[in-house]
Amino acid sequence: MQVGIDAISAHIPPHYFPVRELAVLRQIDPDKLEKGLGLSAMSLVEPEQDATDLAAQALIALLQENPTVLPRVGRIYMGSESHVDGAKPTLSYALSKVETALGQPGCFNACDVVDMTFACIAGVDAMLSCVEYVRLNPDHCAIAVASDLAIYSEGSAGEYTQGAAAVAVLISANPRLLVMEKELGIGYAGVEDFHKPLQRFQRAALAQELGAALNPASDSAFWSSPKTQVWVHSIEPVFDGPYSNACYTERLQEALTRYENQCGESWLQRFDKMAFHLPYAFQGRRMGASLWLNALRPTAQWADLVAEIGPEPSQEEAKTEWEKKASKSQLYRQFVAQRMLGAERASSAMGNGYTASIFIALLGIMAQAITEQEELSGRAVGFLAYGSGSKGKVFRAVFQGDWKQSPAAQTLWTRLKERSPIDTETYLRWHRAR
Amino acid sequence: MQVGIDAISAHIPPHYFPVRELAVLRQIDPDKLEKGLGLSAMSLVEPEQDATDLAAQALIALLQENPTVLPRVGRIYMGSESHVDGAKPTLSYALSKVETALGQPGCFNACDVVDMTFACIAGVDAMLSCVEYVRLNPDHCAIAVASDLAIYSEGSAGEYTQGAAAVAVLISANPRLLVMEKELGIGYAGVEDFHKPLQRFQRAALAQELGAALNPASDSAFWSSPKTQVWVHSIEPVFDGPYSNACYTERLQEALTRYENQCGESWLQRFDKMAFHLPYAFQGRRMGASLWLNALRPTAQWADLVAEIGPEPSQEEAKTEWEKKASKSQLYRQFVAQRMLGAERASSAMGNGYTASIFIALLGIMAQAITEQEELSGRAVGFLAYGSGSKGKVFRAVFQGDWKQSPAAQTLWTRLKERSPIDTETYLRWHRAR
Repeated sequence: MQVGIDAISAHIPPHYFPVRELAVLRQIDPDKLEKGLGLSAMSLVEPEQDATDLAAQALIALLQENPTVLPRVGRIYMGSESHVDGAKPTLSYALSKVETALGQPGCFNACDVVDMTFACIAGVDAMLSCVEYVRLNPDHCAIAVASDLAIYSEGSAGEYTQGAAAVAVLISANPRLLVMEKELGIGYAGVEDFHKPLQRFQRAALAQELGAALNPASDSAFWSSPKTQVWVHSIEPVFDGPYSNACYTERLQEALTRYENQCGESWLQRFDKMAFHLPYAFQGRRMGASLWLNALRPTAQWADLVAEIGPEPSQEEAKTEWEKKASKSQLYRQFVAQRMLGAERASSAMGNGYTASIFIALLGIMAQAITEQEELSGRAVGFLAYGSGSKGKVFRAVFQGDWKQSPAAQTLWTRLKERSPIDTETYLRWHRAR
Repeated sequence: MQVGIDAISAHIPPHYFPVRELAVLRQIDPDKLEKGLGLSAMSLVEPEQDATDLAAQALIALLQENPTVLPRVGRIYMGSESHVDGAKPTLSYALSKVETALGQPGCFNACDVVDMTFACIAGVDAMLSCVEYVRLNPDHCAIAVASDLAIYSEGSAGEYTQGAAAVAVLISANPRLLVMEKELGIGYAGVEDFHKPLQRFQRAALAQELGAALNPASDSAFWSSPKTQVWVHSIEPVFDGPYSNACYTERLQEALTRYENQCGESWLQRFDKMAFHLPYAFQGRRMGASLWLNALRPTAQWADLVAEIGPEPSQEEAKTEWEKKASKSQLYRQFVAQRMLGAERASSAMGNGYTASIFIALLGIMAQAITEQEELSGRAVGFLAYGSGSKGKVFRAVFQGDWKQSPAAQTLWTRLKERSPIDTETYLRWHRAR
């Protein structure tokens, strides 16, 4: 029995901030962002909205487009790193909004519901749990949700990669869009490339951080007991970009190697399209170059690369130069254009959606194929998922005959075009109010 | 192929605070806590320790007791509501401590790792995900971890139910301890009986909460960008005890009904022992009375109850009185003693361990049977799991021939006896320093 993605819905926030205007604000060369990283716009959400609103929108769209499915849904799992509670699942807040919007209180009473957390990969973790559930319960369906807001400090190196998105993915037997295969390569290592630690502050120290003079005699509701410390949680991550890129590459190489050992075949042969987690649009092509070189070396195509840019030197420094040349070769550009273009285009227009990002990449691949009238039925997409902290997962899914019928893929470019830009003043006001 | 619990390890914190001393401190009648709720001691953890330390201890014990298993472990999932990070899984911090302690850096490189969140039920969610994984990958094993600290404000109604614990559960094919069955009853409803919401504070308002006067001219590292707001996360929950009890009962009744529909048999016949999630030791027997009455009504045993306490009146008020009498009947006391006694005894000695609590209940049942030389092989334990927010799950596992070989069960009472008490002054110092 085959299990996979039967339907997918995305919430695309109706506002965006042009990256070119952020470049002006921060006095960054716009070409560095547009041509270097592939950024053009970032999805922005009004400060009152959080991940529960985005998730609810994606779920409402999925359930309205598939109105008869709910009685068969036995599991709804969500990946996010924009949680709103330390105990009660963020998904449960979203589901309450969905019940109200659909006018169906209690409609999830028979569903298993949970939040999963592992930075940007938890949405994929949720989806794979849903696939396991349907493999074991083929009469039932499951829904994976990914919802996040990527918010960074003003002026930080992350600011131009901001974004927001949510997706809901319906998993079923005999799926209409994509069949998931069983091979799964994993790479895990505990590193601190990106995190959002709870910070413990002494009461006096926090007052100092606030620029305030502590008056220990005063007590209020929040300090109902004689607390001396408080935990403060920043929604903006602590991160090291270049180190995180290196971790991403290492985890993916480990996952790819394990994946190939299971399949007995190179991923190069197996992935017609590639859906990376894209913190910025060109992350896949930039990091992919070294993975591609490793995979290309034992193949006949290696001779084509050598014919184009000359033989690989043995000397270390020259080698680095040569690899840079390889990443700009005609052969690699072709590889990127064939396998990643739609994913990049969608990411470029929305920015980073953390857990939702890899699903937006998938929708971009589908939307681009519809635009170019490229037939995907029977062709395969490789998922290259990453979560900081850190874990990589690699697996494959095969497009089915009805893949073109996905409303989310059909309308993606139109919906992105219909959004409204916000100006710099609004951007700053929203950012500071969050 | 049969899948279930092959091994289980628990971390029992070496310190406890006697509930009788808390009663003195708070001027509560000690009998209300000891005889009314079944509380005798609360496990306490030094303020420098968090859920990652507890989880690491349980994992180290499991891997040292099962030294050859690691290469076959493909999944480690953790449930907790004491997370230390908003993006990177709390489990990954624990695993880094385990790698160091075992002197095996990178030993989890091939493992799928994730955090799950749904209040106290997320440890069960993690375990059931591990069971699904092994059903689909029977050559592999998986480990579920549950780790929590239950901390409540001084003087609050939750203070006397505090506790801390962590467990690690090894799931495999042909397990030595317990075979998990496939039937699973679920009840879900989005309610706010207990949660730990992130609270958004205006900078000035937080300063006021701190009893401090804000000086807006001052800025420091934490306020690196012109933030006006900050999120504050209390480790102490916001909750409504009686409402949460009602939600617990409703979710369990829903889950039990769905479970019985799948089995075609009453749970009364199916559960020789009952492992409840126990926020306090007598939660199971108190809430269980109404579930038991519902289940007993259609059986021949109903006549025994009527013979003992008289017939059930039809008038509403008299009915409530009669139900109270039923919960104190010889028949129900016998039921509790046979099915819950060990679970209550373990909970009574440790307090609430949130996600770990139901597994401590299971260990208590096993330890009590060892003490009483009761043979459990071939007998069944019902899991009655609850997470606020809210979700109930009901399923069954059958003890295997080697169930007595569990070191954690064999040593439970001894290890509880070997702990050191702390005095009231230390209790207050530790609580306030956290």
